[in-house]
Amino acid sequence: MSKVHNFSAGPCILPQEVFKEASEAILNFNDLNLSLIEISHRSKDFVVVMEEARTLVKEVLGVPEGYTVLFLQGGASLGFLKVAYNMMRANKRGGYIVTGAWAKKAVKEANFVGEGKVVATSEDRNFNYIPKNYKSVSDCDYLHITSNNTIFGTQLHEFPDVGVPIVCDMSSDIFSRKVDVSKFDIIYAGAQKNLGPAGTTLYIVKDDVLGKSSVGIPTMLDLNIHASKDSMFNTPPVFAVYASMLNLRWLKANGGMNWIEARNNEKADLLYAEIDRNPLFEGTCDKKDRSKMNVTFVLKDESVGAKFDEIWNASNISGIKGHRSVGGYRASIYNALSIESVQALVGAMKELESN
Amino acid sequence: MSKVHNFSAGPCILPQEVFKEASEAILNFNDLNLSLIEISHRSKDFVVVMEEARTLVKEVLGVPEGYTVLFLQGGASLGFLKVAYNMMRANKRGGYIVTGAWAKKAVKEANFVGEGKVVATSEDRNFNYIPKNYKSVSDCDYLHITSNNTIFGTQLHEFPDVGVPIVCDMSSDIFSRKVDVSKFDIIYAGAQKNLGPAGTTLYIVKDDVLGKSSVGIPTMLDLNIHASKDSMFNTPPVFAVYASMLNLRWLKANGGMNWIEARNNEKADLLYAEIDRNPLFEGTCDKKDRSKMNVTFVLKDESVGAKFDEIWNASNISGIKGHRSVGGYRASIYNALSIESVQALVGAMKELESN
Repeated sequence: MSKVHNFSAGPCILPQEVFKEASEAILNFNDLNLSLIEISHRSKDFVVVMEEARTLVKEVLGVPEGYTVLFLQGGASLGFLKVAYNMMRANKRGGYIVTGAWAKKAVKEANFVGEGKVVATSEDRNFNYIPKNYKSVSDCDYLHITSNNTIFGTQLHEFPDVGVPIVCDMSSDIFSRKVDVSKFDIIYAGAQKNLGPAGTTLYIVKDDVLGKSSVGIPTMLDLNIHASKDSMFNTPPVFAVYASMLNLRWLKANGGMNWIEARNNEKADLLYAEIDRNPLFEGTCDKKDRSKMNVTFVLKDESVGAKFDEIWNASNISGIKGHRSVGGYRASIYNALSIESVQALVGAMKELESN
Repeated sequence: MSKVHNFSAGPCILPQEVFKEASEAILNFNDLNLSLIEISHRSKDFVVVMEEARTLVKEVLGVPEGYTVLFLQGGASLGFLKVAYNMMRANKRGGYIVTGAWAKKAVKEANFVGEGKVVATSEDRNFNYIPKNYKSVSDCDYLHITSNNTIFGTQLHEFPDVGVPIVCDMSSDIFSRKVDVSKFDIIYAGAQKNLGPAGTTLYIVKDDVLGKSSVGIPTMLDLNIHASKDSMFNTPPVFAVYASMLNLRWLKANGGMNWIEARNNEKADLLYAEIDRNPLFEGTCDKKDRSKMNVTFVLKDESVGAKFDEIWNASNISGIKGHRSVGGYRASIYNALSIESVQALVGAMKELESN
């Protein structure tokens, strides 16, 4: 069978090695003659998986001492509520930089717990840039940011330093580039981009923030409770955690963040260079705010759209249709996507030009 | 390799066919030359999976018109909070029959949203029976029950009819026996017993109760929002839903609830008969309240414990150590466990007797 170039925005491509090992574990895990998914999560064999996954997050991302790593459930959507519950202090107010649809949803959940104050937004231009000027956050308990905007194709290339704790939804670019974790109080991320399959959500939490909320927190939303139970307060999403662990092993074995950041830069540079060179295409975002994960672009003349669709389909390219709120095309070039797949897409763009 | 008799309390045994098909889908799903876990949850191929899973729940369990089936995340532990949020009405009070550790946790979450009123409890005898007399629930918006108590080995063999909506946590016995769904306003269940792998939680919700809460509900805890988005408000736990669908196909193909209930009765009868016959053992629960899913028993003379452990280990029996709060042994005899595995355990008990 011929290789599919999978540009899906998420759930998305993971390394073939991960698929192979995960597939084997479903049949026979650790030579137990049992499936990974039929053993107790309290068994020694699975506890080792959870601990390796948590440790690999720290090793690969360079998480400093004083942080706890958790693999929970619910996606970033439940994370919006969790971080608000856990970060509210005397002000009962969080500041939010609204850079896209997900950030807007985060504000809504903050307003359930306390107040979500929008300190900057780029909605005036359909989120095609990262706002650089903020209202004061001195009356906020924390500042919430979204590091990468999957739908709109923008990314924060510098993080704010504003004197209040920073909470960051890194769902769509965690593990894609080096990050100074010490600058954040909570990092959280749905797994289904660069970490693993859908079904688990990563939290990296500064221990100092645990147990300090000014509001009552339901049990399952309390990060302090999950931390005290080593991420096993209740039954974890066994398969998603295991596959994430395999993927982190792959990342570490191949060279970690230095290696993947260079590889991701190379892929993004190649694709953006073609978008800027090819007279038929243009990017949708301010150049300085372009995402290295989700590359959004449109045809200047939509009348050649059918021809372009025909060309990329024939090249075994999958998943580049743009999100309905932007239109055009979106190529998600996550960690596991090879440079060859980007070359295939660039080839299709050149072919359209020469048609 | 020799067969392991897997009596794990959960995550637990599923049919071999499910492991095989799930394993294959991780490598190549629907002949797409893509893994199940790398495709978009909005793709046609996955939407079909979600819809088949939801439809099979209705078909297999005989869910009447007017109910919505959802596959969400968070386990029953998050369910405790969700059902309280969604079921609170003018009284802002739910009644709770406390039959074990999980029911106690459900009360705690209800007290976060409104009031959880304990209308009956069997804690006086370490939950080894089902209380039959309740306080009045006329001042409650709903009555919450736990149909089967995994830790303590009890099960409700009749459901209360008390004039208020019934909410039931069926995590450990759903799909093990026929149930008249029309008697319940919400049924919910962590998947990891008879439904599928850990990582998804089933909700069967009467449409009439949606959108009627007297309290504000955070987005991800609002069953009405999940229902309005066909169980795809956010990225679902793709693998867990797919494996659950495979398991429901297996159940339907083999004869559905009539078949599995008869098979489960046969297994439970065989094991309890040996517990009652063998002079070395005794059950821990009132006979009329015994669970057909989790069979708890102890040695009358613990000094032969080491010998018994040696015998069952030699028989390739796995997972029968009792929960720490009960001690002794717990044999979980879920749907996919064969009668041969129960025969192996009965054989080990007989072997101890003849030693």
